[in-house]
Amino acid sequence: MIVVGSGAIHLRDELAALGGEIGGIEIRKFPDGEKYVRVLGDAGEVTVVSSTFFPQDEHIIELLLIGDALREKGAEKLRAVVPYFGYSRQDRVSKEGEPVSVRAVMRALGLYYDELYVFDLHNPETLRFFPGKGVNLFPARAIAEYFSEKLGDGVVLAPDKGARGRAGAVAEKLGLAYSHFEKKRISPTEVEMKPVDVDVGGRNVLIVDDIISTGGTMVKAANLLREMGAKKVFVAATHGVFAEGAIERVSKAVDELAVTNTIPTPVSRISIVPEIVRL
Amino acid sequence: MIVVGSGAIHLRDELAALGGEIGGIEIRKFPDGEKYVRVLGDAGEVTVVSSTFFPQDEHIIELLLIGDALREKGAEKLRAVVPYFGYSRQDRVSKEGEPVSVRAVMRALGLYYDELYVFDLHNPETLRFFPGKGVNLFPARAIAEYFSEKLGDGVVLAPDKGARGRAGAVAEKLGLAYSHFEKKRISPTEVEMKPVDVDVGGRNVLIVDDIISTGGTMVKAANLLREMGAKKVFVAATHGVFAEGAIERVSKAVDELAVTNTIPTPVSRISIVPEIVRL
Repeated sequence: MIVVGSGAIHLRDELAALGGEIGGIEIRKFPDGEKYVRVLGDAGEVTVVSSTFFPQDEHIIELLLIGDALREKGAEKLRAVVPYFGYSRQDRVSKEGEPVSVRAVMRALGLYYDELYVFDLHNPETLRFFPGKGVNLFPARAIAEYFSEKLGDGVVLAPDKGARGRAGAVAEKLGLAYSHFEKKRISPTEVEMKPVDVDVGGRNVLIVDDIISTGGTMVKAANLLREMGAKKVFVAATHGVFAEGAIERVSKAVDELAVTNTIPTPVSRISIVPEIVRL
Repeated sequence: MIVVGSGAIHLRDELAALGGEIGGIEIRKFPDGEKYVRVLGDAGEVTVVSSTFFPQDEHIIELLLIGDALREKGAEKLRAVVPYFGYSRQDRVSKEGEPVSVRAVMRALGLYYDELYVFDLHNPETLRFFPGKGVNLFPARAIAEYFSEKLGDGVVLAPDKGARGRAGAVAEKLGLAYSHFEKKRISPTEVEMKPVDVDVGGRNVLIVDDIISTGGTMVKAANLLREMGAKKVFVAATHGVFAEGAIERVSKAVDELAVTNTIPTPVSRISIVPEIVRL
């Protein structure tokens, strides 16, 4: 049985259409703001799906309440699928006195869930904070399928060296070449970007990243590729955590911007639902 | 050291004035809504104070983040003081499929805190869900001192039999008599209330409860006491979880309504800070 939380309502119809058995759930708020949940139906092995985008804290507490309700009902095995995992970028102490916020959330979910599936976690190593089995998925197939025709015999690029694996996974599904941008600081405020060992002249290019926030890097990369003679420039990312105006800014600079639906946005055109149903 | 969370900012100045050593803390939100905390100063034995009223979920997650930051800093002993404990009224499964929400929150806090102090918990038995040492405090002294002069040789009443202990504790501090209202259902929609074994004629009366929400019971009790010839009618409660318009409704029906400052409200005139400092 699949239980759909507030952070995955946008995935429910497709989950059902692809054969997922959707369990009933009642979710509302008391007048004082406390959340009320009630899980209907049998509880044997249950998969609870909910991303923890804004309002993150509400979605996280709701996952605990759903977990508590299911355990109370006698559920034997609980699996949480959290496509976008809030607080994942607070994965280290950069100033003394900070928490490793992602650890706190992973530990809390571990009170109720045996397994945790996430998509393209900012720092996959932080899954070690989850006490049960933790799995990080990258929707390479979904991204590749979406851009396959548009890209033709183009090339896949990562915005930096650290993101090469992601570009490689998509390129592999498409049977295309891939590379990455090299970044070099040329002044205190300026960074020079350059695609490494690849000729983009006359070719379509797909840049793949994990999160797009302000979109600054993407706009810069796209402009550079145009200057270098690229044909069409596409941008894909797993999570569209867009800052104000970012969608417009990136869309204007590229031929198409598309992200997956781990978070619902106007450009969440790539679905991760098939990957969830396959689990 | 005392660390003051978002749910206790209204208590900070008084905590400092009464001698609490207040530790520095930085709390803000990232543009995407995620909370950022940073704890300054030494972390040896730390008391974190924060009520979890609205927005409850944010206050709860913040307590986890503060706990994580303090543990990361090497804190040896962490004590949480949560004067008003959100979700405390969801203390049992009344319809199949519901969670015991208070349990989920207690367990999550147990990941980081060794001790938990709460005030007048809706169901004190739910403290057993907290894995460490749990203590339920009732601010009888604070309530008694606040109403001592006004009440004179009056009487203290509980709104129902279950709340007798609370009235008794306040009455004892004042050296006064106490009793409770008996409730009798006289029709499907009507409940008759009657103070048991006590003559309120010509006397001041203080009604003491744990939470005032709509205030319906208090208004009814106050009207009844007037009919019975009571002089002044005062109402006190630990937690002012007021529904819209409740403060005005109750205030109009009584001579004075005062609650403690576990939650900041316009009538939170009774301070629990001395009780926190004494811990």
